Amino acid sequence: MKLFNYYRSGTSHRIRIALHLKDVKYEYVPVNLLTREHKSEEYLAINPQGLAPSLSVDGHILTQSPAILEWIEETWLNPPLLPVAPLDRARVRAMAALIACDIHPLNNLRVLNAIKGEFDADPKAVSRWIAQWITAGFEALEKMLDGTPKRGGFCFGNAPGLAECCLIPQVYSAKRFGVDLTPFPAIIAIDQTCTALPAFIAAHPDNQPDAV
Amino acid sequence: MKLFNYYRSGTSHRIRIALHLKDVKYEYVPVNLLTREHKSEEYLAINPQGLAPSLSVDGHILTQSPAILEWIEETWLNPPLLPVAPLDRARVRAMAALIACDIHPLNNLRVLNAIKGEFDADPKAVSRWIAQWITAGFEALEKMLDGTPKRGGFCFGNAPGLAECCLIPQVYSAKRFGVDLTPFPAIIAIDQTCTALPAFIAAHPDNQPDAV
Repeated sequence: MKLFNYYRSGTSHRIRIALHLKDVKYEYVPVNLLTREHKSEEYLAINPQGLAPSLSVDGHILTQSPAILEWIEETWLNPPLLPVAPLDRARVRAMAALIACDIHPLNNLRVLNAIKGEFDADPKAVSRWIAQWITAGFEALEKMLDGTPKRGGFCFGNAPGLAECCLIPQVYSAKRFGVDLTPFPAIIAIDQTCTALPAFIAAHPDNQPDAV
Repeated sequence: MKLFNYYRSGTSHRIRIALHLKDVKYEYVPVNLLTREHKSEEYLAINPQGLAPSLSVDGHILTQSPAILEWIEETWLNPPLLPVAPLDRARVRAMAALIACDIHPLNNLRVLNAIKGEFDADPKAVSRWIAQWITAGFEALEKMLDGTPKRGGFCFGNAPGLAECCLIPQVYSAKRFGVDLTPFPAIIAIDQTCTALPAFIAAHPDNQPDAV
């Protein structure tokens, strides 16, 4: 199994966390987004959309991190990334989707390039743009976290799962962009719990072969 | 079961399709996004994020359409919205995620308001913004559709599923915004097949009680 990914891509980071949580071995294939390797003929033959990550499995190419995460969950049952009861699963998936749909898509490289190119956004405007979506999303997530049963410093239940696969990369990105996280104590606490765990350390951007 | 939604919201439309495909009865509760009912105290008490749709089930509130779709799939087994084999499920989920993460979030009301407010985007710039993400996403989807087994004019297999729940609302939105769809013959064909089916007719924005 080969993971085509980039150390600092949030969606790549999600998949690495899930694979390390399940203790699944994979080959790391770096795709440099800054030198536009994801738009090279070679990579487009693997993933015609030209986005990272892609997971190559027995000649099949899986794309789109939410779909890959569900595939990992269905393929390796332990430890589970989702609770058992359907309503609980929906709550965890909602937290993951909030990040995957309402925060991350607005702040990825192609969108930042678009607001610079189309609207001449200067660095300050880009920072405001990034911060507004992270802040709005994290405000909502704090309220959702208020209502979940937590027994170990995680988003739900007593172990990290699908929500943390999405949240921890988003917190990493928020810190990188200098977003003020002090209004989000529950998120900060979960991030601190997770970043001390071996799977999250192994998946961290700084610890990847292409980190610079 | 109550669906808090808005006739023309793409994420609301997804849930209506899934419920009608499964023949699940629900109460329709309109939330007018144009008059900002979704930011009213009453609605924020239901969904603190102030986004549509929300699904109220036995006192529980489900949010985030991808999570609600998976919950519907897990709760009513027939007809299935996903194939059986994990790699096939991943392909269908990837098509749904491409729309839910790479197209829709960039074109919803709050983001269009942000580019108008922050960057003084005029109507032409807003139209270009909308069209660029739909076009890029549909180009990728056409390539993904190229490789799927199709036996009845659908995204995968011989019945509509999770991919169509996301695709048909996105095509509706593309038409509404005047995006040229002629480069996407596979998508047009699937849209034509689906829009003739009872579940898709029942879920169509024009056929909702709050349609104007």
